[in-house]
Amino acid sequence: MKKNYNYNYAFLFYDVNVKRCNKVFKVCKKYLSHFQKSVFRGEITPSKLMLLKKDLNKIIDEYEDFVCIIKLMNNNIYGEEILGNKQNDTGEDLIL
Amino acid sequence: MKKNYNYNYAFLFYDVNVKRCNKVFKVCKKYLSHFQKSVFRGEITPSKLMLLKKDLNKIIDEYEDFVCIIKLMNNNIYGEEILGNKQNDTGEDLIL
Repeated sequence: MKKNYNYNYAFLFYDVNVKRCNKVFKVCKKYLSHFQKSVFRGEITPSKLMLLKKDLNKIIDEYEDFVCIIKLMNNNIYGEEILGNKQNDTGEDLIL
Repeated sequence: MKKNYNYNYAFLFYDVNVKRCNKVFKVCKKYLSHFQKSVFRGEITPSKLMLLKKDLNKIIDEYEDFVCIIKLMNNNIYGEEILGNKQNDTGEDLIL
């Protein structure tokens, strides 16, 4: 059994049908920061996270789409390594 | 300044040119478990992680490709939520 921590930070990545990409992107953008292609992250309160999930569940197709949210207590408990182009254009401008 | 924790668990996600997808997939697969499309995760020692990064750096194009590794102390400090199709075919069979 995992402990029920207070999670206040999340990573979110999705793999959804291209038809719904834009909608999912916009919902995620509302709550989190766009990090890379189909990955978002950022500080988020448990209540906001519930709203995010509610919004996403309205959009996605439960058989075809996939969204995974990794919740962390804060952004101090992970380390990050980037290989390759850090200044990669995220394509955000093209999508919105 | 972040503390220098002992990281033994990692998430890895990549966005690489389709020409190098297969190679990157195979290298990641060697060290981690395939989780979803371009996302891997699993327990990994710091020394193995160094090898993984070394292998990836040989393959990827530093201007065109992007690989991000999120390191965690263990798999007990995060919570996970999946929306949509949990039994999604990862496409692994098609790729390897």
